[in-house]
Amino acid sequence: MNQNKKVVIIGGNACGMKTAARLRRRAAKADIIVFEKGAFISYGSCGFPYYISGSVKDYHSLIGGVGSVRDEAYFDSVKGVKVITKSEATLIDRENKEVEVINHRTGESARHSYDVLVIASGGIPSQPKINGKESVTGVFTVTTMQEIIAIREYIEMNGVKEIIISGGGFIGVEVAEALKEKDLSVKIIKKSDKILPSLFDEEMSLLIAKHMEEKGVEIIIGDEIAGVTSDDKGLLKSIVTEKGKVLSAGIILVSKGFIPNTGLAKDAGLECGDSGAIRVNPNMRTSDPDIYAGGDCVECTHLVTGKQMTLALGSLANLQGRVIADCIAGDDAVFPSVPGTAIFKIFDYTACRTGITEKEAKELGYECISAIVPGPDKPPFYPGVKPVIIKLIVDKKTKRILGAQILGPGDAAKRMEIIATAITFGATVDDMSMLNLAYSPPYSPPMDNIINAANAVVNKIKGLAAGLSPLEVKKKLDRDDDFIYLDVRSEEEFNRMRIDHPKVMLLPLGKLRSEGSRLPKDKEIVASCMSSLRAYEACVILKAMGYQKVSFMDGGLMAWPYALST
Amino acid sequence: MNQNKKVVIIGGNACGMKTAARLRRRAAKADIIVFEKGAFISYGSCGFPYYISGSVKDYHSLIGGVGSVRDEAYFDSVKGVKVITKSEATLIDRENKEVEVINHRTGESARHSYDVLVIASGGIPSQPKINGKESVTGVFTVTTMQEIIAIREYIEMNGVKEIIISGGGFIGVEVAEALKEKDLSVKIIKKSDKILPSLFDEEMSLLIAKHMEEKGVEIIIGDEIAGVTSDDKGLLKSIVTEKGKVLSAGIILVSKGFIPNTGLAKDAGLECGDSGAIRVNPNMRTSDPDIYAGGDCVECTHLVTGKQMTLALGSLANLQGRVIADCIAGDDAVFPSVPGTAIFKIFDYTACRTGITEKEAKELGYECISAIVPGPDKPPFYPGVKPVIIKLIVDKKTKRILGAQILGPGDAAKRMEIIATAITFGATVDDMSMLNLAYSPPYSPPMDNIINAANAVVNKIKGLAAGLSPLEVKKKLDRDDDFIYLDVRSEEEFNRMRIDHPKVMLLPLGKLRSEGSRLPKDKEIVASCMSSLRAYEACVILKAMGYQKVSFMDGGLMAWPYALST
Repeated sequence: MNQNKKVVIIGGNACGMKTAARLRRRAAKADIIVFEKGAFISYGSCGFPYYISGSVKDYHSLIGGVGSVRDEAYFDSVKGVKVITKSEATLIDRENKEVEVINHRTGESARHSYDVLVIASGGIPSQPKINGKESVTGVFTVTTMQEIIAIREYIEMNGVKEIIISGGGFIGVEVAEALKEKDLSVKIIKKSDKILPSLFDEEMSLLIAKHMEEKGVEIIIGDEIAGVTSDDKGLLKSIVTEKGKVLSAGIILVSKGFIPNTGLAKDAGLECGDSGAIRVNPNMRTSDPDIYAGGDCVECTHLVTGKQMTLALGSLANLQGRVIADCIAGDDAVFPSVPGTAIFKIFDYTACRTGITEKEAKELGYECISAIVPGPDKPPFYPGVKPVIIKLIVDKKTKRILGAQILGPGDAAKRMEIIATAITFGATVDDMSMLNLAYSPPYSPPMDNIINAANAVVNKIKGLAAGLSPLEVKKKLDRDDDFIYLDVRSEEEFNRMRIDHPKVMLLPLGKLRSEGSRLPKDKEIVASCMSSLRAYEACVILKAMGYQKVSFMDGGLMAWPYALST
Repeated sequence: MNQNKKVVIIGGNACGMKTAARLRRRAAKADIIVFEKGAFISYGSCGFPYYISGSVKDYHSLIGGVGSVRDEAYFDSVKGVKVITKSEATLIDRENKEVEVINHRTGESARHSYDVLVIASGGIPSQPKINGKESVTGVFTVTTMQEIIAIREYIEMNGVKEIIISGGGFIGVEVAEALKEKDLSVKIIKKSDKILPSLFDEEMSLLIAKHMEEKGVEIIIGDEIAGVTSDDKGLLKSIVTEKGKVLSAGIILVSKGFIPNTGLAKDAGLECGDSGAIRVNPNMRTSDPDIYAGGDCVECTHLVTGKQMTLALGSLANLQGRVIADCIAGDDAVFPSVPGTAIFKIFDYTACRTGITEKEAKELGYECISAIVPGPDKPPFYPGVKPVIIKLIVDKKTKRILGAQILGPGDAAKRMEIIATAITFGATVDDMSMLNLAYSPPYSPPMDNIINAANAVVNKIKGLAAGLSPLEVKKKLDRDDDFIYLDVRSEEEFNRMRIDHPKVMLLPLGKLRSEGSRLPKDKEIVASCMSSLRAYEACVILKAMGYQKVSFMDGGLMAWPYALST
C-alpha cells in the first residue's frame, strides 16, 4: 500500500478501534483518524449488564484491554492513532472522497478527505411505540456507555425497585439476570410467545424461561407495553400493556434488538442487503472499493445456510477489524462464513447456541435428526459435578452437524466451543462422536457429553433408537393419546419427583428383562428416565422382547420444561 | 451378523465393558462374556489420584456410570452381559477359537470357545529395579483398584508423612498433587531432566515444575531410586538414590508409565507394532479377523505424524469399545487418527496439550513457527478473571496447526478442546484466527486467547513480528551477549517484579515514540513486558523508527520459568 494513505474510520468501538490499532502496526506512516459520535471509545458493551448490576464497579474498567485504559491519549501516544470523540459523521461524499463530521462539542461541521474509509457505525436500538414515553423519565435503551451510566445512576438515585424489560432478546435476558441478582423485582414483557425465539428451539427456550422464573424473574409473553404514567415529578410510575394490564414500574429498559446503523451508507448509495445492513465482500469491502465496513452495521454469511444475515457480536467485530486493516495494508485477508455462536450467563445456567435451530432447519427443508442429551459434566464421583443439556441438530442425509444448543449449570461453554469449531470445519456427527478431547475427571466424563450427544443422533440415524421430544410427549399426555408413558427409574427416584398423569407407569430398568412381558404387546410405549440414557436402554430391551412401537422421551425429566410433581 | 454369535472379551475395564454394553444393544441374542482378572470392573482409573487423596471418599463411586453402580449383577440384570471377575485369560488358541481362563477364586482352568474375541487387556506398569524392594512393604504402583485401596489404607494406617514418587509422567504428577493437598511431604524423583518430557516443550514443562515447587512438591531430576531400607517391621524407611542421596520415605509410588499388556496376543502370534502394542486396522481388528483389540494394549495412528503409537487414555478406550461393538454387529465403524490430547489438574493450574511438541516437530523436519501467548481468560473487568498461557506450534509451509500446549489457573481446558477439534479437521492457523467462538464476558475475552495465539503466529509467518523463547533469552543473558533487554512495562510494574540482570533496561511503551530514539541504533533489542503484547507493539514502533534487530520475548514475564526479583 501507499504508506502515506489517509484512512478515516467512522465509529470508535470494537471494529473501528481494532481496525485502527491493527492498521497502525501494518502501516507505520498511514494517517489514521477515528471519529466517534459518543464520549467513549473502545468499550466492552458486552459488559454493560454487569456494570448495571454493580458486579463491575467502575465503568472505566469496561474501557480498555490488558494493562492500560484505552482512551484518546493512549491511542495517540501508544498506537499513534488520532481519535476524536463527540464527533459524528453526517455525510459521505464518495465523489470527492470526503466525510462531513459535526463536532458536538463545538457544533461545527468540517469535511475530511480520505483515501480509504471504514464504516463501523454499529447499530441503533429498536424503539417501541409507547404512549406518553416522551413526557416521563425512566425509559432507557441499553446501547451506549452514557446510557448504562445513566441507568445505574437512575436506579440508585430514585431507589428503583421495579424493573420492566421490554423485549426478550439476549441483552434483555442478561440485564434481567444482572438486576434480579441485586434483589430487585424484574419483569420481562415480550410480544412473541417465548424468550430468545430466534436463538433457541422451543423446549430449550422453555427450559431457560423455567430457570429464570425459578430465580424470580416474571416473564410476560404475548404482550407489549402500550403506555406509561408518571408521578408528579415526571418519573415513571406504571405501565399499561396492550392487553390492559397495569403494572407499577420504576424503570423501563428497552431491549428489542438493533437495527444496523446504515443511514450514512445508504445516503451515499452503498449497496445494502435485504437485512438492511451494508453488504460487503469477504474482504469486508463495500460496493465502493475505497470503502470498507464492519461490525454490527454489516451483513455476514451464515456458514450453514449460506445466507446473508446480521450478527451483532463484539467478537466478530474485532475479527472483522483485523481483516479490514490487513486488506488496507494490501493483504487478501478474508472474513469467513460464521456459524452464529452466542453464549449467555443466566443465573446459575449457561445457555449457548451455534448454527441453526431445528425449527430453522425444517423451514429450510432439511430432513434433520435431533437429540436432547442431558448428562453430568464430569464423572459422577468428582466433586462439583453439574449437569448440562445438549440439543444437537444433524442433517440426516449428509450427517453434517447443523446446529447445537447447550444449557445448564455445568460447563456448557466448553462444549459449545467444540461444536462451533466442528461445524466450522463441516464436521459430520460421526466425526464428532470420535473426537479425541481433553479428558480428566476434573474437566469431563470419559465419554464427553458432546460425544454422547453425537452417539444419540447416530443411533437415531441408524434406526437403533427413536426419540420423542418433551413437547410432543406433553401434547400426547394432554390429548390423552392411547399409549404408555413408562418411567424406568427406580421407585425411590419416582417417589421423589415425577410427571403426574394417569398414563404414567413405573417399571424400573433392572426389572424390565424379568417383568417387561406384562406390558401390553400392541400399545405404543414411550420410555422415560432422568436423562433418557436408561430409557434408551429400556427401548432396546423392549424391542428385543418383541415390542414394536417403542420410543423414549428425548432428554428425560431433566429436559422436561413443565412442572413436575414431588 | 449371526445374532447368536459368542463373543468373549478379555478385560473388564473401559474398552472391554464399553464393547460389551454397546454390543448388547446392537445384538440382542449374542452370547457376551467378559473375563476380568481383577476383582473390579468398569472403574474410572483416571479417578485414582482423587481417591488416594481422599477427595473422592468411597472407591465404590469410581465404579459406574450415571444412576447406578456398574457391577456384575448390574451388567447381568440390566445389560444382559455375563461378567466373571478374578478370571485371567492365559492362552488364546486361534486354531480352535478358544480362550483358556484361570479362575483365581478356585484355581481351576477352563477353555471357552468364541466366535469373536476382543482383547482389552490394558497395560502393565513399568517396574524400576530397586535394591531391597522385595523385602520391604510400602512400594506400590498405581494401576488397579486393589492397589489404590491398599495405598490409601497404607498411608492412613502407618501415618505416612513422606511420599516418594518414582517417575514424572502424568499419573505421578497427578498423585503428587493429590497427596500434597493432604499436606504430606511429596518428592518426585525423575531420571530425565524434566517432568512430563514427552508431553510438553521445555519452557512449558519448566513452568509446570515451577508451579509444583511453589506448592511445595520437591522435584529431583536426573536421579533414580537405587535402593530402599526398612524398619524392624519391614516397613519402608528410606531410599538411596543412584547419586547417593538418602531420603526418609514412608511410601514409594511408582509411576513410570505403562507397557501394553500383550503377552497373550504375542503368544498367539498376533501382529504387534514397533511400540510393542497390538497392531489393529481402523476397524480395531487385529491381524486375525476374528479378533479385535482396543484400549491401552493397542496402537493408534497419530493424526499429525501419521505414525503408530500407544496412547493410554480412558476416553479413547471408550471410543474404541464402541467401534469394536459396531464392527462386530456388522458396521464398517472406524476409529480415526487422533491428535493425542491430554489434560491434568496440577494444583491451581490446568495443563493440557494436543498434537506434537515443537521439539517433535523439529525432529520430524517441520519448519515450524511457534508462539507463546499469555493472557486473561476473560475481560479484565470481569470478576474471577485468571491467566492462561498458550503455546501454539504451526507448520510454516502449510500453515497447518501441529500442536498446542496450554497451562495456567484460567480456563485452559476449553481452549484445548477448541484446538484439539481444529487440529482434527486439519485447520490452518488462519482458520483458527477467524473462529466464531462463544463470547460473553463471563466466559472469555472478545478476542479469545486462542485467536490471539493464532494471530501471534500469523504475524510471525508474515514477518511482522519476531519472537525469542524465554529459554533463548535466558541463554543470551547467561552468556552475556551484546544486546539490550528492553522492558517496556510501566515503572510501577517494573519495581514490583523484574529480571535482575545488568542488561535489563526500562522504557515504558507510552514513552517509546518520544524517547525511543535514544536507544543505540545498531544494537540488538529484545523487548519484553508481562505477556509480550506490549513488547510486540514496541517492536513495531522501533522498526518504524528504523531499528533493525528487534524482537520480543515470547510470552513475556508470565512465561518466564525462572526466578524473578521483587
